[in-house]
Amino acid sequence: MIKAIGFDADDTLWHNETHFQDMQRQLTEIIVGHTGDPDQIDAHLMAVERRNLRKYGYGAKGFALSMIETALELTEQRVSGAEIAHIIAMVQRFLDKDVHLLDGVIETLSWVRGRYPCFLITKGDEIEQREKLAKSKLRPFFKEVHVVLEKDPDMYRSIVQREGLDPGQFLMVGNSVRSDILPVLAIGGEAVHIPYEVTWKHEQVEPSPEASHRFATLSSIRDLPAFLEGGLRAPA
Amino acid sequence: MIKAIGFDADDTLWHNETHFQDMQRQLTEIIVGHTGDPDQIDAHLMAVERRNLRKYGYGAKGFALSMIETALELTEQRVSGAEIAHIIAMVQRFLDKDVHLLDGVIETLSWVRGRYPCFLITKGDEIEQREKLAKSKLRPFFKEVHVVLEKDPDMYRSIVQREGLDPGQFLMVGNSVRSDILPVLAIGGEAVHIPYEVTWKHEQVEPSPEASHRFATLSSIRDLPAFLEGGLRAPA
Repeated sequence: MIKAIGFDADDTLWHNETHFQDMQRQLTEIIVGHTGDPDQIDAHLMAVERRNLRKYGYGAKGFALSMIETALELTEQRVSGAEIAHIIAMVQRFLDKDVHLLDGVIETLSWVRGRYPCFLITKGDEIEQREKLAKSKLRPFFKEVHVVLEKDPDMYRSIVQREGLDPGQFLMVGNSVRSDILPVLAIGGEAVHIPYEVTWKHEQVEPSPEASHRFATLSSIRDLPAFLEGGLRAPA
Repeated sequence: MIKAIGFDADDTLWHNETHFQDMQRQLTEIIVGHTGDPDQIDAHLMAVERRNLRKYGYGAKGFALSMIETALELTEQRVSGAEIAHIIAMVQRFLDKDVHLLDGVIETLSWVRGRYPCFLITKGDEIEQREKLAKSKLRPFFKEVHVVLEKDPDMYRSIVQREGLDPGQFLMVGNSVRSDILPVLAIGGEAVHIPYEVTWKHEQVEPSPEASHRFATLSSIRDLPAFLEGGLRAPA
């Protein structure tokens, strides 16, 4: 029986990846005048992000630096100061942006919170995630908030243990199969996948057919209460 | 009686601010050809850092962006791509650097750890602080590690409470009067100030004469065991 529910934040409770894709589109517009090949820009940015991930971690500041590095490298440093300033300005605007909740989030959290202790478990830059949470006004729904560097089985196990639960009593809800679903299944927990409209390339993963049978997929967080009331197993 | 000891990390256990001052010096060398006034560069960088602090938090990625913004603003965007690349490269080198412990840290932690549970309490960017801790090899000395966004009385109170201690049973050791000393005194804890060779400008604060009598100042972490053995009050 489920006794606690974890929620991912970015692209599960509020829109995030769309903003990053929007910044990436603007970067392409800036550089394409120098290089002429949009696909090359996307591929290079992705490679730079991957190269920097261990050093920069997740978040907008690291993304800003990776975009600037991409611009410098693809233009052989001919990108102008005004263009660099444009890149920084769009990241600053992103950090200043309001947080937009996904449809049905408030209603669902209100319902769930009355029945289960809820945990927010989000990967990313601590200050950015805390700031988004503050803007979202969702803090009161959660017993605890964990901003973690990586969502791996050990991290989930430590949260479950700290609550004195068995892994099978914990259910995680999120949009990323790689971060929210597979590591929770790995420790014997339950998971509900709610895909977002877009998935960050670094998070894309195809679950094995066996794993796919071990978690449910809902099309909206609005369906979570009915799912929890109807028992846990999704139709295979 | 003291039952637990907290240690700051940057400039208390390992060198940090000197690296930032070194980067700032290199930034000045880069821009001074455009503007001609080194003092103006320092003052502008400090203003940009302050402006960005709430958005970027502490750490090298935010510092990199603030340096780039400073370069763009002071040169009216005439700073070259090569010069921007130089700024990013020096931050990357900083992130790749080994961690250099201050003199006496290993010996002191070995002594203290055998007598008190030790906590590492550090402000900053989570991934950067965790990476420095890993490089330092000091993790085994600490019962717990807290990377926090701000060192204020509430944060210290929550750590002390979680350990089931009274504030008067907790002693904090650090180089920053603003972050490591005053907020701990404010909750009724004890504190030992060990000044570092340089203090980050944003951390500079002059304690009131009354506050100065409420904490001890040691010239080196090597003196901590003798201080702990001799009782807590420093000669006024």
